Amino acid sequence: MRNLNHKLAVARGEQRAELLFKNARVVNVLSGEIHEASVAVDDGRIIGFGDYKARKVIDLRRAFLAPSLIDGHFHVESSQLTAPEFARAVVPHGTGAVVIDPHEYANVLGLDGIRYVLESSKGLPLDFFIMLPSCVPATPLETAGARITADDLRLMIADERVAGIAELMNYPGVYLGLKSELAKIAVGKGKAVDGHAPGLRGKNLNAYALAGIRSDHESTELEEAREKLRLGLHVLLREGSTERNLAALLPAVNAHNSANCSFATDDKLARDLVVEGHVDHAVREAIRLGLAPITALQIATINTARHYRLHNLGAIAPRYWADFVVFDNLKKFAVRQTYKKGVLVAQDGEYLARNPAASPPPRSTMNLRYQAGDLNVKAVPGRKIKVIEIVPNQIVTRQIVVTPKVVAGRVTADPARDILKLVVVERHRATGNVGVGFVRGFKLKKGALGSTVAHDAHNVVVAGVSDADICRAIQALEELQGGQVVVSDGEVVAELGLPVGGLVSNRTLEEVIAGLDTLNDRARELGCDLAAPFMTLSFLSLSPIPELKLTDQGLIDAVHLRKTSLFV
Amino acid sequence: MRNLNHKLAVARGEQRAELLFKNARVVNVLSGEIHEASVAVDDGRIIGFGDYKARKVIDLRRAFLAPSLIDGHFHVESSQLTAPEFARAVVPHGTGAVVIDPHEYANVLGLDGIRYVLESSKGLPLDFFIMLPSCVPATPLETAGARITADDLRLMIADERVAGIAELMNYPGVYLGLKSELAKIAVGKGKAVDGHAPGLRGKNLNAYALAGIRSDHESTELEEAREKLRLGLHVLLREGSTERNLAALLPAVNAHNSANCSFATDDKLARDLVVEGHVDHAVREAIRLGLAPITALQIATINTARHYRLHNLGAIAPRYWADFVVFDNLKKFAVRQTYKKGVLVAQDGEYLARNPAASPPPRSTMNLRYQAGDLNVKAVPGRKIKVIEIVPNQIVTRQIVVTPKVVAGRVTADPARDILKLVVVERHRATGNVGVGFVRGFKLKKGALGSTVAHDAHNVVVAGVSDADICRAIQALEELQGGQVVVSDGEVVAELGLPVGGLVSNRTLEEVIAGLDTLNDRARELGCDLAAPFMTLSFLSLSPIPELKLTDQGLIDAVHLRKTSLFV
Repeated sequence: MRNLNHKLAVARGEQRAELLFKNARVVNVLSGEIHEASVAVDDGRIIGFGDYKARKVIDLRRAFLAPSLIDGHFHVESSQLTAPEFARAVVPHGTGAVVIDPHEYANVLGLDGIRYVLESSKGLPLDFFIMLPSCVPATPLETAGARITADDLRLMIADERVAGIAELMNYPGVYLGLKSELAKIAVGKGKAVDGHAPGLRGKNLNAYALAGIRSDHESTELEEAREKLRLGLHVLLREGSTERNLAALLPAVNAHNSANCSFATDDKLARDLVVEGHVDHAVREAIRLGLAPITALQIATINTARHYRLHNLGAIAPRYWADFVVFDNLKKFAVRQTYKKGVLVAQDGEYLARNPAASPPPRSTMNLRYQAGDLNVKAVPGRKIKVIEIVPNQIVTRQIVVTPKVVAGRVTADPARDILKLVVVERHRATGNVGVGFVRGFKLKKGALGSTVAHDAHNVVVAGVSDADICRAIQALEELQGGQVVVSDGEVVAELGLPVGGLVSNRTLEEVIAGLDTLNDRARELGCDLAAPFMTLSFLSLSPIPELKLTDQGLIDAVHLRKTSLFV
Repeated sequence: MRNLNHKLAVARGEQRAELLFKNARVVNVLSGEIHEASVAVDDGRIIGFGDYKARKVIDLRRAFLAPSLIDGHFHVESSQLTAPEFARAVVPHGTGAVVIDPHEYANVLGLDGIRYVLESSKGLPLDFFIMLPSCVPATPLETAGARITADDLRLMIADERVAGIAELMNYPGVYLGLKSELAKIAVGKGKAVDGHAPGLRGKNLNAYALAGIRSDHESTELEEAREKLRLGLHVLLREGSTERNLAALLPAVNAHNSANCSFATDDKLARDLVVEGHVDHAVREAIRLGLAPITALQIATINTARHYRLHNLGAIAPRYWADFVVFDNLKKFAVRQTYKKGVLVAQDGEYLARNPAASPPPRSTMNLRYQAGDLNVKAVPGRKIKVIEIVPNQIVTRQIVVTPKVVAGRVTADPARDILKLVVVERHRATGNVGVGFVRGFKLKKGALGSTVAHDAHNVVVAGVSDADICRAIQALEELQGGQVVVSDGEVVAELGLPVGGLVSNRTLEEVIAGLDTLNDRARELGCDLAAPFMTLSFLSLSPIPELKLTDQGLIDAVHLRKTSLFV
């Protein structure tokens, strides 16, 4: 601690403090109570409670003062924002720290992607802690931009902003004791090791916990969360843009076990962060659903800080950073002010901090090799085809079997039956891989939707009615160096450039929200009625999630994790 | 973890487990509930809950199964037992681990004393974790056997059984920011740093916490404990042989803050450990006083394990060691069985483990240089003397001033007024230092009581009526290579050898209890009516505790921490 002797003199009352927050009702997540106090701050640190002399006195007039909030698990790429713009979105909502898993950056850019996040998140009024992505690529059935092994993880684990190993999504690999997965867990020794085990129960869950996994954020059922708590897993209550599990899981939480719970958003869009909120939204929901406010705020602060060993964060007490939120009503919990290291950084929804100059973006990641003919699908007379059917608002899909529309010996899209052509073009290393399939659920009457956000390998994915518009979309995405586009009649009618890894915009929060709004509007004009068409599109390549997916390597039977043919 | 792949196969149900504890009511300190389960164990580890096949099935018939108990702060020397004999005392009470501060060993033997504890506590059905003594010697006003600096602590901090830095008793040194004390705290970075701040409140307590202290076990007042919890100090609720603070502090504890509390005994005599119990006694008391049993058991187990980072201890869940206690009644909490790594090590009060061969004792520590004439006190005509007055059952003393009894120009004991001569002889490095004073409160009519346990420097301390008996006591203690003796009419009428550092017996638990009983009986026959005469004697040299003390350097004004003269 810098100038510890000076701060000790301040604490003893022999020197004036920089700041005194007087007449606060302190939400003390350590003593589990709310008590009146004045809080002295110096050099960004909390000095103590008491009647101190200070150069500046801030009278809180009995407002509540709580520690800033912490998100226990988040993929910052899901906001399509750079770290500084993400800070602009969430700091006004009281977020002081996020534990992020840069899984998408890592799939595209490898360790360089992780380094970019570390670099670009410095100097902000929001602390970023990194969990090292453990499953890159997610499966061998798609071509990612990088491959990360336990040896790679070992190179970065010692960084003080690295909090551990991110979600071990290959949970069968873990409970079966695959050497590669156990080696990744071993790298995390002494730090956190996150799990990802949707629906896993019983003996295999015992094995998953025994192997060294310490948390899980994938519970959707109450009894599942209860079982995970019993096995000693730290349970992250997820409330994101689409995954909303808080209400279902909250009955598992009480004052006797809440120390083992945190809030997480996992994935949340920029607009949702701004309009609905971030961790503060989860706190409000939990209180509305009946949780004691002190418990909700412990879950939002100290519990997460302790689980991830985020030193000096998550509480208001001597030695902790002066990261506060100020609010007036314990039940409504609307953050009025956010302080970072004693500095007011947001007030009444307005971000007041000045961000540092933007970090240099990572290298270009658009390396495509394809030609129009790659999109052709030669019909096989008398054979039906497998079609990916979208399940609205879910990342699972269904497989349906239909008689194809055939024109001049080729299988084509058939908008009359809502069957579009789906194309995935490998974009990392110009392999020339092009996967072609068909999808139902977009309801486009014409045109195409394209994206370079396509979990988990983030190749180019385009769904469209005509090959010409699909090709135009691919071309537009190349020109943008990554992004999302809507094409109609050969014209790009909406676009959002995502040049940072093909994942994230280099524009402002407001521009990103407006850009995505326009994309959605144009998609709707073409007939699409999905709530989030580009999010849906981005999950059609996610090969570990059932039932049928398409990657650059072709159609994937995502139940048995193997390639499959288009024709039945 | 050894054989992890084998254990994962057991967890998956593909291999038989070694043990299954079926029909248990599991006290789950992680999920904060009591639930029925069968618990599989293999290779000393808990594998998981469920219907497993096992080579041996133990039907608990709905008995309670809780994690073994953990003492958060204990000076094992206070039991006068070696580590193996201490294990015999407490394992039947359900203790599975102790966090000890070998402060007395360190004062006598320095780092060798710490190494001896580490060595002699191996292979027992009780885990010893060491906090490195931070205040050796306690003050410059007494001559200890060693001096330990931050550099010395750094030599041992990395040992995996070293849990941190022990109580920083020089609390003014800490809050004033003395370089020597801050350096010791810095050594503990990443491990626990224990405090010791009796009665410290307000601004100086803020400074103490700010400096990096993370716990305190010295609270005696309710509001003091509340304040310490608010400042983020882990509060150890002490219930020892004499210091009994649990009842006073318990109202500060509830489910919202109990994660920040542990139980501790600090100092407890062998007989009390056997008869009354150890941590189990604190659990019973807490429940009797109204604390929820699940909370009491969390305080006794997982909270302490987490605070001191004792890996895989303190809970019943996969990966944790199979350290259990079995009991039948949640309110009475009488431990019926204790398991260590799945092995039954105590049942119905009987210790079943076989201890390893005793470790070689540390070097002799009795290096005295004195002669009978050193005991003479030349009277100063017309001057009164300061006398140490014992306060029964407390470590503080009072200073009284009396007219001395003078015989042949020398001040002598005066049993008629209950004034005995008190002698402290340096025993570590044959300095020839002999302190002589007078004490009131022992009520000996004749004879002398002597001990080499004398906090904190543990020099030879003898209180007696005649110089001849005092000399005989010193001589007997030399012959014993340390111990406690009662002398009457030139004869040693009771003795307990404490050859291990002059602090601890090399005999069995039963022999130590019997030996101390005999010492107390003989002391009583000589007129002493104190409850624990040798404990009282052992605190008369403790120079940091008010009001008047005697060390090898002479009479000490323990209020102002300076030497003082016998004569007023």
